[in-house]
Amino acid sequence: MIVMKQDATEEEIQAVIERVEGAGARAHRINGEELTVIGALGDREHVQKLELEGSPGVEKLLPIQKPYKLASSQIRHGEPSVLEIGGRKIGGDNFALIAGPCTVESREQTLGTAATVAAAGVTLFRGGAYKPRTSPYAFHGLGQEGLRLLAEAKRETGLPIVTELMDVRDLEPVLEVADVIQIGARNMQNYTLLTELGRAGRPVLLKRGLSATLEELLNASEYILKEGNEAVMLCERGIRTFETAYRFTLDLTAVPVLKELTHLPIIVDPSHAAGRRDLVQPLSLAAAAVGADGIIVEVHPNPDEAICDGPQQLVAAEFAAYAEKVAQAAAVAGKTISTLAAEATAA
Amino acid sequence: MIVMKQDATEEEIQAVIERVEGAGARAHRINGEELTVIGALGDREHVQKLELEGSPGVEKLLPIQKPYKLASSQIRHGEPSVLEIGGRKIGGDNFALIAGPCTVESREQTLGTAATVAAAGVTLFRGGAYKPRTSPYAFHGLGQEGLRLLAEAKRETGLPIVTELMDVRDLEPVLEVADVIQIGARNMQNYTLLTELGRAGRPVLLKRGLSATLEELLNASEYILKEGNEAVMLCERGIRTFETAYRFTLDLTAVPVLKELTHLPIIVDPSHAAGRRDLVQPLSLAAAAVGADGIIVEVHPNPDEAICDGPQQLVAAEFAAYAEKVAQAAAVAGKTISTLAAEATAA
Amino acid sequence: MIVMKQDATEEEIQAVIERVEGAGARAHRINGEELTVIGALGDREHVQKLELEGSPGVEKLLPIQKPYKLASSQIRHGEPSVLEIGGRKIGGDNFALIAGPCTVESREQTLGTAATVAAAGVTLFRGGAYKPRTSPYAFHGLGQEGLRLLAEAKRETGLPIVTELMDVRDLEPVLEVADVIQIGARNMQNYTLLTELGRAGRPVLLKRGLSATLEELLNASEYILKEGNEAVMLCERGIRTFETAYRFTLDLTAVPVLKELTHLPIIVDPSHAAGRRDLVQPLSLAAAAVGADGIIVEVHPNPDEAICDGPQQLVAAEFAAYAEKVAQAAAVAGKTISTLAAEATAA
Amino acid sequence: MIVMKQDATEEEIQAVIERVEGAGARAHRINGEELTVIGALGDREHVQKLELEGSPGVEKLLPIQKPYKLASSQIRHGEPSVLEIGGRKIGGDNFALIAGPCTVESREQTLGTAATVAAAGVTLFRGGAYKPRTSPYAFHGLGQEGLRLLAEAKRETGLPIVTELMDVRDLEPVLEVADVIQIGARNMQNYTLLTELGRAGRPVLLKRGLSATLEELLNASEYILKEGNEAVMLCERGIRTFETAYRFTLDLTAVPVLKELTHLPIIVDPSHAAGRRDLVQPLSLAAAAVGADGIIVEVHPNPDEAICDGPQQLVAAEFAAYAEKVAQAAAVAGKTISTLAAEATAA
Repeated sequence: MIVMKQDATEEEIQAVIERVEGAGARAHRINGEELTVIGALGDREHVQKLELEGSPGVEKLLPIQKPYKLASSQIRHGEPSVLEIGGRKIGGDNFALIAGPCTVESREQTLGTAATVAAAGVTLFRGGAYKPRTSPYAFHGLGQEGLRLLAEAKRETGLPIVTELMDVRDLEPVLEVADVIQIGARNMQNYTLLTELGRAGRPVLLKRGLSATLEELLNASEYILKEGNEAVMLCERGIRTFETAYRFTLDLTAVPVLKELTHLPIIVDPSHAAGRRDLVQPLSLAAAAVGADGIIVEVHPNPDEAICDGPQQLVAAEFAAYAEKVAQAAAVAGKTISTLAAEATAA
Repeated sequence: MIVMKQDATEEEIQAVIERVEGAGARAHRINGEELTVIGALGDREHVQKLELEGSPGVEKLLPIQKPYKLASSQIRHGEPSVLEIGGRKIGGDNFALIAGPCTVESREQTLGTAATVAAAGVTLFRGGAYKPRTSPYAFHGLGQEGLRLLAEAKRETGLPIVTELMDVRDLEPVLEVADVIQIGARNMQNYTLLTELGRAGRPVLLKRGLSATLEELLNASEYILKEGNEAVMLCERGIRTFETAYRFTLDLTAVPVLKELTHLPIIVDPSHAAGRRDLVQPLSLAAAAVGADGIIVEVHPNPDEAICDGPQQLVAAEFAAYAEKVAQAAAVAGKTISTLAAEATAA
Repeated sequence: MIVMKQDATEEEIQAVIERVEGAGARAHRINGEELTVIGALGDREHVQKLELEGSPGVEKLLPIQKPYKLASSQIRHGEPSVLEIGGRKIGGDNFALIAGPCTVESREQTLGTAATVAAAGVTLFRGGAYKPRTSPYAFHGLGQEGLRLLAEAKRETGLPIVTELMDVRDLEPVLEVADVIQIGARNMQNYTLLTELGRAGRPVLLKRGLSATLEELLNASEYILKEGNEAVMLCERGIRTFETAYRFTLDLTAVPVLKELTHLPIIVDPSHAAGRRDLVQPLSLAAAAVGADGIIVEVHPNPDEAICDGPQQLVAAEFAAYAEKVAQAAAVAGKTISTLAAEATAA
Repeated sequence: MIVMKQDATEEEIQAVIERVEGAGARAHRINGEELTVIGALGDREHVQKLELEGSPGVEKLLPIQKPYKLASSQIRHGEPSVLEIGGRKIGGDNFALIAGPCTVESREQTLGTAATVAAAGVTLFRGGAYKPRTSPYAFHGLGQEGLRLLAEAKRETGLPIVTELMDVRDLEPVLEVADVIQIGARNMQNYTLLTELGRAGRPVLLKRGLSATLEELLNASEYILKEGNEAVMLCERGIRTFETAYRFTLDLTAVPVLKELTHLPIIVDPSHAAGRRDLVQPLSLAAAAVGADGIIVEVHPNPDEAICDGPQQLVAAEFAAYAEKVAQAAAVAGKTISTLAAEATAA
């Protein structure tokens, strides 16, 4: 929709109509009492390339079609996608509880945490081998040694692994251990990375950038989907607002809104949003109650000694009680925590 | 804490120390390797009046004490306030379900909605007689006629009434019907109105401004509390962020953070935050699960015909099922919807 | 413009068309390849009252007409308003330099500052007698005694006075001394106050709320204009963003955008935005260069001893040099500082 | 500074002191009347690794030292860096006017624009060969063919070239033509890219992320500086706020604040912030008046036919008049546009 200025001349209106039709679209003119509106109907891509904003006589453009296709809920007629990762379903009525340490620090910490969360019935195990850090002077992860420890945790517990990739040059070693590759908020619009993941075909957990709109998040997922990789989960992890009383503002409104816009499963990360352990449980319950398809949280045997993000990691000894409360909140929204046992029972 | 610049001279440091001590506070100097920090210890009000920011040699001020006293959780040693309104408790384990039409439009609509929500077991009945509207050309409420209809609804259902006050000149008629006086987001810092409500002594539901920090919200409540009115509830109703995919961003992180900072009950308004009916239920469940002390929602017998905010009002016929789900989510957070019947049973 | 969902049924489309026509507007249907759009053409107010958002089959509404009329630049065919206050013009090529203390503290401070800024050739003198403060424990101004000192400053210098009104009950004494009544950011949507000012007929300086959109600011001005008071200036004073390295984000993009949307003069307040004296001059030069119709700044003979906002007040002894730089920056944008002398010369 | 809770026990206080001292820092305890504060004095990195937030008894941490070193203005004792690029100075009193097309589209467009801006006396020529785009379906630049056209423009005009790098795998061809490598806002925290640029040693123009704080921007520059590359310019290009009346909010307050925090030159990009041609000139004048060390703008011979970002590109035929106004505004801030001729004259 192209809204012309009240004082647009007939010449200016005609010029716009000609440019619309020159781009292969149909122009539909509406003469209002105060102003004229021109509808440009046609192929999404052609109309998008018509950059009419700021042209003579043009007041503003009102986009009607969404710029993404494969991520849209329309492509599946409103039916949600259900991913299957290592035999665990995610999406629909299947709630993913994803837990593990922020960073892989040592064999003992990694295997101990994995055993604890496996016993509590989580869906996937998470752990960072490569860590993006705001300061160049901070700890950046154990790298390949961290990946080896994650592989060992997988052998011991059978839990599929979620781990972050930051540099396209690390893709091969990450593919050897990761069942799900996480893309962090800072890399949400790192298009070369997204394209490579689309080609790699491994499931992706794509985190929303700190100030990314939902449309930008969906556009970013489209970079992966259009390479043929349909296994994408989106992750809300807090947005940046004016409030300084806590770290980020967890945007739970985004969950039902995204579920209307897209068929992809929506995961919530309360740990990074809050940055404080005492907020993780209430926000986890809220995320489950609002209808998220899963949550991803950080757990550590002794958070006070964690190398990074200690203050936000749940205490491993308290994890089972926490998981039980999350299951209750998910039940209010009609969902069940997905585990291999749950699948077996269902079958 | 006053942080001096790295290149602050000894004279500048002494000048700051003198100003601190001149204000009746004790100055505590810490010489670091790179810079000097001066702690100003003393009466909160005196130290606040020392406006040292920008003084020569001063890098920045780091406030340590909170600027509010009576709203602080410390004043009650961490014990939450439990208000009692028309025999219904709010706070602690008592969850307030507050419902009713956005605006009082007619006798039939008001009494019909009141009967519906009373039957579903709500705590309080809400309805607007005076409506703040962004545009001067919009409908601004029935005024005193609206108040009369609310009084009738109260007689018929026994439900206590929540209604908004905008103009201090309307205080008297509002006091005749309101059990709780609501202050809208636009008036959160209308200090003359807050002071009058403090004096009036009637319970107040104070809504957070669209871009008010939690500290500003608590400071605003302090205007009411310091006049001797202790019955204040705070209300999160969505904040303004960059996201345009929905109306406001409901800040549910604010709930557990506020509950740590203050003893006052925290209510959530999902209707105004979302602006869309289909988002109200998921956000209500999330608000209950996150630990709010209540929610306030809008209900209409036929929202499509509502004079204002139709799109966000719940349909009266579906309200009982909605209330049942809210009760389940509140239970996950350890709370029970407060009604007169509940009180009677407990007694 | 009403955009229907892709899967909207013909019945839903007809229902929307009927509601549009039932409201007295004309419905104009456009059948696109993927979806249907309905244009509702007719009286602004009637169409606004059609709250179709959320109705069955409706994807979204795209408003085309602006909700304000009298503030719109269209009403004056793009010609800017030029106000005349005490013989000084504001608007068009006339740049208003408005200066004075944050708060009227004493006779000496007020008259001394007034003499200094008068000598430097300012347009208007500002000073606060009633001060809104975030904390109830802070200093709230001298009140009527402050007004008397402002009246004395006016007699001595001949400068018209700008002072803030917070409470409608103080309107009469303020009208006795104020040539321009300032409405602070916290009261931008205090509609009862705006309406009374519209009736009072005195020029108004309306500050933008911390998170008010430009459309909301224009709507707020419409409350004054529609009562017949055409002498309104709008004031950008910093908005609230995520950045914490300074107090508020001065939104200078708002200036040229507002000048396209409205005929009203646009003033910028760099003092409150920055909160730090060293930022006031660069921001003042930027405001003048971007095309503002004036700036309002705070000046104090000895800011370190100011009762409030000392850190942001310019030092009186440096004001003349500052005013000279501002005049240069205004000249780049084609404007001249407006004084009585300038008027006399022009005549 | 570690602020303990009012009800922190002596044991909790001692535990914090032990952890501070265990990290090799000195703990300095201050017993206030209401609460206890512990200063942790010592090496920046060790103290940073003490993640005490959320530890028992800890209310909050107040960081005093800045996390970046090499970008800090202290490292040069307040003296600004002056870069020299192809004989043109940038920084100090030298203002960089950087202009050219958004995207290199064709030989004629590129060479024509280069000739126009060279004639108007710009400092550097900009042009995009690799373009990050929100949608995967948009045009992504000519790539290596674009680099060849930029090299030709450089040979013809002698102007140094600024062009964007997105993918570390394109570094070598970009190094062959670029005098300055631009890192876009989406890649501000792409740490692998920043580190490679630090090693490459070529001057870098680092754009601020849409919601990056100034501290995060400086931390990002530190990734480049710490590899030994000192030639970094920072670029403000608009931040994301709640306002929807224009594309981004140009944060001009950031300019004087950054100039106090860092010695690096600060450039402003008004084209991407505004997204509309009519806003580019007022915002350019404001950027020059506020004290920026340069601006980077987009120019096109015929913006209506531009492949991307047409609406925001200046018209080449109007560029000389625009450059003249910018020079006037820069002069108000005491700066002169830097060209080879200016250098020669100065020598």
